[in-house]
Amino acid sequence: MAEPEQDQLLVLTADADDLVARMAGRLPPDLTVTTCPEAATAREIGSGTTLALANPTLLAGCLDALPRLRWAQSTWAGVRPLVDHPRRNYTLTGVRGIFGQAMAEWVLGWLLALERSILHRSRATRWDGTRDGTVAGKRLGILGTGAIGRAVARAAAALDIESRGLNRSGHAAEGFTETFALAEAARFAAGCDYLLALLPDTPASAALVDREFLAALPHGAIFLNGGRGSTVDTGAVVTALGTGQLRAAVLDVFPEEPLADDDPLWQVDNLYITSHTAAPTDPGAIVELFLANLARYRAGEALRDVVTFERGY
Amino acid sequence: MAEPEQDQLLVLTADADDLVARMAGRLPPDLTVTTCPEAATAREIGSGTTLALANPTLLAGCLDALPRLRWAQSTWAGVRPLVDHPRRNYTLTGVRGIFGQAMAEWVLGWLLALERSILHRSRATRWDGTRDGTVAGKRLGILGTGAIGRAVARAAAALDIESRGLNRSGHAAEGFTETFALAEAARFAAGCDYLLALLPDTPASAALVDREFLAALPHGAIFLNGGRGSTVDTGAVVTALGTGQLRAAVLDVFPEEPLADDDPLWQVDNLYITSHTAAPTDPGAIVELFLANLARYRAGEALRDVVTFERGY
Repeated sequence: MAEPEQDQLLVLTADADDLVARMAGRLPPDLTVTTCPEAATAREIGSGTTLALANPTLLAGCLDALPRLRWAQSTWAGVRPLVDHPRRNYTLTGVRGIFGQAMAEWVLGWLLALERSILHRSRATRWDGTRDGTVAGKRLGILGTGAIGRAVARAAAALDIESRGLNRSGHAAEGFTETFALAEAARFAAGCDYLLALLPDTPASAALVDREFLAALPHGAIFLNGGRGSTVDTGAVVTALGTGQLRAAVLDVFPEEPLADDDPLWQVDNLYITSHTAAPTDPGAIVELFLANLARYRAGEALRDVVTFERGY
Repeated sequence: MAEPEQDQLLVLTADADDLVARMAGRLPPDLTVTTCPEAATAREIGSGTTLALANPTLLAGCLDALPRLRWAQSTWAGVRPLVDHPRRNYTLTGVRGIFGQAMAEWVLGWLLALERSILHRSRATRWDGTRDGTVAGKRLGILGTGAIGRAVARAAAALDIESRGLNRSGHAAEGFTETFALAEAARFAAGCDYLLALLPDTPASAALVDREFLAALPHGAIFLNGGRGSTVDTGAVVTALGTGQLRAAVLDVFPEEPLADDDPLWQVDNLYITSHTAAPTDPGAIVELFLANLARYRAGEALRDVVTFERGY
């Protein structure tokens, strides 16, 4: 049973004060609230913390100094730092469902820019009536059929793009005309005009998009990674761009971020780098999600978007 | 009554042979078919023509030499050359409903490119985590609530863009949350984050988007013209870009096309020119539309998409 009268909330993010300001007047009056922008201070002042609204990386850095923590709401989709932490005797909730719109914009924005020659036409200095390509009737393969993937598939359908999904077991998912299991990756890839990786950072997804996977795509496919850098063998992507096996690649995420200014990836033709901006956390949406879960917590109800530590998301 | 046994079909477009090849085996065997890529030859050989599948400009150039013409199917949305022609004793059918997808791609592609910094990021040479804008929650005003406008509104809704429409009488239209009459243009404009012109070339639409109309938009709006060049006072657009009243403009059409290489418009900042490629005629779709109407014609049924000469579309 929750004991709401004793709860202490730690807001642990770089923009903690902004998050608390956004919740003005909407937090229970009996809740003690502490804000903290980094883990070191949280270690000193967090001993009474029972609830946390926190960036997973920062929280992992002070989790052992929060002995009374019962529930932590992540502010970020990537919860790997907490999943990898040995401590698991608290409830961790994720942020599913609030990145779908931004990711759909990023995916469709880039696909349309590439198919409709928007990058080229934006620099035009003379009339060019060359017929553009189209996304109509194309097939988008999405690695990961969770909430973000479903949101992308739904938006893509409005532009006559059909989506097929790949997940661990090949279970069906709303918005996908077909789904495939990990073991069917080659058959999945063979039908994709576009490939979008949206996998969480788990051992099962490590370097899944490798030379072999890319070779299974139709020649001239477009690849986008909006998930985690660890999913992709970046060297294999560069090679596939060189041969034309990939027409273009749009990478939002990398194993090490930020990418250095002198990283040779910046110079690769037809490779576009979007600096981990595909689906940024929307503080307003995070606040709404946390307040809704907080109301459930205090009512003793089940929380939404609970992370299964064993599964990793 | 149609007399199908005597019909002679003239296919009069630059790609007439391609269109006929696409219809192989699907035309009635008793139909005589003539192809012609230009009007001068059609004038010589067209005296027996009863049916035409034709580019409106070419057909207008030989209409007086086709005395037996009963029905012409346009291959192009802009039927102004035929509407302006004195001869009206035949049925003219247009091509509504087949440009919606291409136009939706063009509109959403450019809006996403602008909001999500895709033009900028495509040239990035260093990490830039600056948060992009979004189309979510924005309002798109569409001048023209016909089939193309409705298709754009439907696709925009999937990206959380709300559409309002403007038409002659302000009558409601599917997919639009609100519609306004021409007389309410200022009130319509005041609520538009984005403005899209899709009006046909009629006297009522001439220079509708002028200095005053643009001034009624919120500061920093984006304007797109995917309709006809005559709808827009291009000079007023350039001025509005200079003051920042318009953040960007994307113009697909112009009063005189092609735009000359030395036209100063090519050099205007934040003005993008797409060389009348927004919604090109899809020959496959034209063929399907013509064959469906031909079946109706031969069955003595009402044709689809009949143009009202008085209205101009």
